[in-house]
Amino acid sequence: MANLETTLARGLGELERDAPPRLAAALRHAVFPGGARIRPRLCQAVAAAAENDDPALVDATACALEFLHCASLVHDDLPCFDDAPTRRGRPSVHHVFGAPLAVLVGDALIVGAFESVARACVSSPARLPQLILLLTRAAGAPAGLVAGQAWESEPKVPLERYHRAKTSSMFVASAMAGAAAAGRDPEPWRAMGELLGEAYQVADDLLDAHAIDDVAGKPTRQDRRLDRPSAVAEYGTQGAVAKLRALVARAAAAVPPCAGAEMLRGLVVEMAERLVPAALRRTAA
Amino acid sequence: MANLETTLARGLGELERDAPPRLAAALRHAVFPGGARIRPRLCQAVAAAAENDDPALVDATACALEFLHCASLVHDDLPCFDDAPTRRGRPSVHHVFGAPLAVLVGDALIVGAFESVARACVSSPARLPQLILLLTRAAGAPAGLVAGQAWESEPKVPLERYHRAKTSSMFVASAMAGAAAAGRDPEPWRAMGELLGEAYQVADDLLDAHAIDDVAGKPTRQDRRLDRPSAVAEYGTQGAVAKLRALVARAAAAVPPCAGAEMLRGLVVEMAERLVPAALRRTAA
Repeated sequence: MANLETTLARGLGELERDAPPRLAAALRHAVFPGGARIRPRLCQAVAAAAENDDPALVDATACALEFLHCASLVHDDLPCFDDAPTRRGRPSVHHVFGAPLAVLVGDALIVGAFESVARACVSSPARLPQLILLLTRAAGAPAGLVAGQAWESEPKVPLERYHRAKTSSMFVASAMAGAAAAGRDPEPWRAMGELLGEAYQVADDLLDAHAIDDVAGKPTRQDRRLDRPSAVAEYGTQGAVAKLRALVARAAAAVPPCAGAEMLRGLVVEMAERLVPAALRRTAA
Repeated sequence: MANLETTLARGLGELERDAPPRLAAALRHAVFPGGARIRPRLCQAVAAAAENDDPALVDATACALEFLHCASLVHDDLPCFDDAPTRRGRPSVHHVFGAPLAVLVGDALIVGAFESVARACVSSPARLPQLILLLTRAAGAPAGLVAGQAWESEPKVPLERYHRAKTSSMFVASAMAGAAAAGRDPEPWRAMGELLGEAYQVADDLLDAHAIDDVAGKPTRQDRRLDRPSAVAEYGTQGAVAKLRALVARAAAAVPPCAGAEMLRGLVVEMAERLVPAALRRTAA
């Protein structure tokens, strides 16, 4: 597999070429430099563990997942939502380019995600329908990223469905689409994706509650300010860290039998340690 | 082919089911009741003329085109763009449901467009890559709807590229995707789509300049107010009507040889007469 940043730069190049110049600059700002790239890395790791036979399609799928993730960050940061001045430690897209271009950047990245996989399925076109559906379910209205954000506009938020839509959906898609792009049955990978998604949500709540701005790279203490549900509010800090570790252990155990299962289990545990905020590692060890 | 409104209702049902209730209501408001549905009708008409052998896929493609169109209307109406209080003669989505849900409705419709075709390609999966690419080019960053809207954020607007991106791209996609979904080579349909798109842009400029609010169903006199390029400003009213009629005649002549060519030429001319605002028909006859 090619270097992930190179893959993303190539995918972005297709969207920027001949595009209106300010839109092209805003697109680049939204995708580079990136965060942990945890979703595309998970996709690539699953594909590698499952004996990837179409690296180009796997890379394009990883790129699509990161585009969808970046789109949701840019739209969530808009003045009409969180009005976040920073993201990944830099000014947010709308802060630099204005709200109109931020709306359009999100739209372009969503469209670009589907373009990425459609363009790369030359060797394995039969895999495309399933890949598109895995991505649309993770991103869309009934139970994906859009639904997750939309629950915040409801008078009553069902906590589990909210987290599943806003966070787990993309981890499930990352794991399952990684397998599907590599020509494997994606279904056995669902459980691992769900557990990692839940773990990530708890980690995000911890970063927010403890105002670990330099790690989060975005405004913290937002959950309380916006009265959003949070694992820290529900279980306390110690309880949340314990829950995170338990979820990661279960995720590692949920890796289905495959050639690279051991490698992947190790990677999941490594990811786990990076998910626990450093400042909390000792207190909760 | 099933009734278009039924097809759209079924497609929307997939997005609404189990979605957050206010998001579901906002999605319905964005799609029903519709406007002229000119893009999906063009798609279906081309498919019928080209001896459609997969009606389910053609209907899903028509649905995808209308979803992408509705998404662009909802986002273009946002306070940060045109801040339009009305659309299709009713309050705009953000006016009823607020800007956050309007952003999410657009996102959900974009995602839903790709879901629609991926779900329906069961009988003809080999057609999916080309269909997805036709839709992404029409909707996306370099030269589709997103680019069209983004040109309005540039200090200098190249008029032809602006209109191609904002209007023609979707007419081209409607014609070409109709052929592709029906199992035909889409390339011969490009010219007709381009000419119809140009004609439609001129018609839209006429409606705006002459403040024909009841036909437009949205605020008019916006081109001058927002200093946007317009065919009326460039050619005058008489010149613009003449240009519209010439473009439609050329579009009819550009219908490629196919079983239903005569039927389609008749339909194009009929569409043309509906495109010329009634109040201007006599003056420019």
